[in-house]
Amino acid sequence: MHDLLLTNATLATMAAGEPYGLVENAALAVKDGRIAYAGPMAELPGGASSQTEDLGGALITPGLIDCHTHLVYAGERASEFEARLLGRSYEEIARAGGGILSTVRATRAASEDQLVEAALPRLDALIAEGLTTIEIKSGYGLTLEDEMKMLRAARRLAKERPVRVMTTLLAAHALPPEFNSADDYITYVCDEIMPAIHGENLADAVDGFCEGVGFSSSQIERVFEKATALGLRVKLHAEQLSDLGGAALAAKYGALSADHLEYLKPEDAPALAKAGTVAVLLPGAFYFLRETMLPPVEALRGAGVPMALATDCNPGTSPMTSLLLAMNMGCTLFRLTPEEALAGVTRIAAQALGLDDAGTLAPGKRADLAIWRARHPAELAYGIGGNPLVQRVFAEGRQP
Amino acid sequence: MHDLLLTNATLATMAAGEPYGLVENAALAVKDGRIAYAGPMAELPGGASSQTEDLGGALITPGLIDCHTHLVYAGERASEFEARLLGRSYEEIARAGGGILSTVRATRAASEDQLVEAALPRLDALIAEGLTTIEIKSGYGLTLEDEMKMLRAARRLAKERPVRVMTTLLAAHALPPEFNSADDYITYVCDEIMPAIHGENLADAVDGFCEGVGFSSSQIERVFEKATALGLRVKLHAEQLSDLGGAALAAKYGALSADHLEYLKPEDAPALAKAGTVAVLLPGAFYFLRETMLPPVEALRGAGVPMALATDCNPGTSPMTSLLLAMNMGCTLFRLTPEEALAGVTRIAAQALGLDDAGTLAPGKRADLAIWRARHPAELAYGIGGNPLVQRVFAEGRQP
Ligand SMILES: [Zn+2]
Ligand SMILES: [Zn+2]
Repeated sequence: MHDLLLTNATLATMAAGEPYGLVENAALAVKDGRIAYAGPMAELPGGASSQTEDLGGALITPGLIDCHTHLVYAGERASEFEARLLGRSYEEIARAGGGILSTVRATRAASEDQLVEAALPRLDALIAEGLTTIEIKSGYGLTLEDEMKMLRAARRLAKERPVRVMTTLLAAHALPPEFNSADDYITYVCDEIMPAIHGENLADAVDGFCEGVGFSSSQIERVFEKATALGLRVKLHAEQLSDLGGAALAAKYGALSADHLEYLKPEDAPALAKAGTVAVLLPGAFYFLRETMLPPVEALRGAGVPMALATDCNPGTSPMTSLLLAMNMGCTLFRLTPEEALAGVTRIAAQALGLDDAGTLAPGKRADLAIWRARHPAELAYGIGGNPLVQRVFAEGRQP
Repeated sequence: MHDLLLTNATLATMAAGEPYGLVENAALAVKDGRIAYAGPMAELPGGASSQTEDLGGALITPGLIDCHTHLVYAGERASEFEARLLGRSYEEIARAGGGILSTVRATRAASEDQLVEAALPRLDALIAEGLTTIEIKSGYGLTLEDEMKMLRAARRLAKERPVRVMTTLLAAHALPPEFNSADDYITYVCDEIMPAIHGENLADAVDGFCEGVGFSSSQIERVFEKATALGLRVKLHAEQLSDLGGAALAAKYGALSADHLEYLKPEDAPALAKAGTVAVLLPGAFYFLRETMLPPVEALRGAGVPMALATDCNPGTSPMTSLLLAMNMGCTLFRLTPEEALAGVTRIAAQALGLDDAGTLAPGKRADLAIWRARHPAELAYGIGGNPLVQRVFAEGRQP
């Protein structure tokens, strides 16, 4: 007895192998929030279902997974965006209180409730386009208390909406104003923040920002050592604005992912492949910052590095709340194929989060599904903005 | 007695002068589908209203106006998008039946009902972001019968949804396969299509595609002469891929707008200003085609040419269904300010359509309104994709 049976569907199972893992004239059965069957109608095992729906040929994909976001924050940076377009320099904006530290101030001043409330419209925009799993980083608190508050707010979003939230501690995001020494701050991160966050089970992984304006690779290595000692997987903002060897460091620590990678040298791609580290490409930030250096997609593809796409949703460098648009930008700006783009927000995005129960349509996986007003999955990456496509979203087999 | 009174609002009236025409602590009153008052609460004239709402400080802008779209078409071009990313050349795709003529074939084969049905999801995506007026061009029929069918479908959309539709005859869009000579086709357009379309009052304006892959400026001039004789205003796709002098021709005929303009020479900007012709910038096509030549925004601004922004929604070069994203791309790619971007989809977009009853919040104008979850209008251009902002849309004072 199935709980739900969807018939007369087209499946993009995203199982590796066939393009899109496409199955026409297909059925998908759900039992206890998991996929019980996904395949040809003709081979559907017998058995009743408490609810059956004919989809009239509509396309089903795995629910979309945004594997890199900074969704939880307070304050706004639209005025900074406007100031830059009116000709103000970064220095003037920083002196006027703008930049990342303005988000840190606003986030520290906000309550957990306020952070949840501020994040919900952004989350709802993503859900309206088929999102069922999202990664959310801390990194605008930069004190134990405020990082905890951010991660608790992130966890609460999973109670407010039908999504799974994976949290990442990004205390090594920026140097907080009360520290003069980055080394001293990293000591605080390793000795105070990380053990406490781990003790309360608030983070599923640990991240850092390895960059001239962030932290050096030796500082990040201290964070990775500590994470490894605590049994937490790591990931890294690497090679976004320059090449500090972050990707190599990520590979050395078996990171789940190395993210951005515009300045990755092609010859550093094989190390990521060998470590099983996913390259998470973030075209929203590339676009918003008017970057011209492209990530070495051909080298990544050639080396067999799995590539994910994500929104990087954040107020300073990627105020993006559409995974479909991230897919289009992945294709238009980075020349991914539409199939790579869809894999990048399903199967590979799951891999970037260390999840083996999502990202494809296969028996045993969570019944996280998106149903589309589309005949072919290439249509998902093709559109620019707006969302004329999504019909419905199921999270663990249930429609909100 | 007002029909509706919105109090405690922030107005971006978009009246020329003050930035955004911003009024805080404002009220807006509606009577018979028109704005009866828009200004400070303190100066609100006395008088009851059958319905009063406190907006809690929310922002009201004029309903958004998309002044350049090809929204009505049949068929899909996602497979062509995919083929290009898989390395197929334009020639291979054309030989396989792709390109604009594939849209012409599908549109000719579709019924008027099917065209309406295909366009509705795209229209709904635009409405969900605050759209209240849209221009829709023909141009995929290229026979009298099929151009009429497209324009009738466009007019019908205004009955299906709470939007105003302005129609534009774009018979001079591409050479249909049954003609060998572009001159002969233009003769057919001028002698057969235009008088008949005008006779049935199906077009509010006449457009053309002045380009090497479209029509020459002397061919377009024949269309403009005929339009002028019929009393129809003109507009033109000009200087998108090369400079054929289209903008100068548009100015000569007092065109409502000259659209695209990437290859406009800066010294040709003053002629547009003198003619009162709006420059309609279309960053979606610029982005999708990976164009690198930027429209001469500083020259246009310096010459006092009013600049609008639009989606150019079409299946081949701009499958874009978000005016907010067009605003962001106008800022990010073309360096418009957020205020110019908002004016470009309100006051200036109205001007590009020859409408003097929309595009600003002022007494006597249509009560076409969008209410936003935003404190400052700069936020509208700042976000990338997704739509966490729009709260509600009023068309002529009524909520759908
Ligand atoms: Zn990030
Ligand atoms: Zn166009």
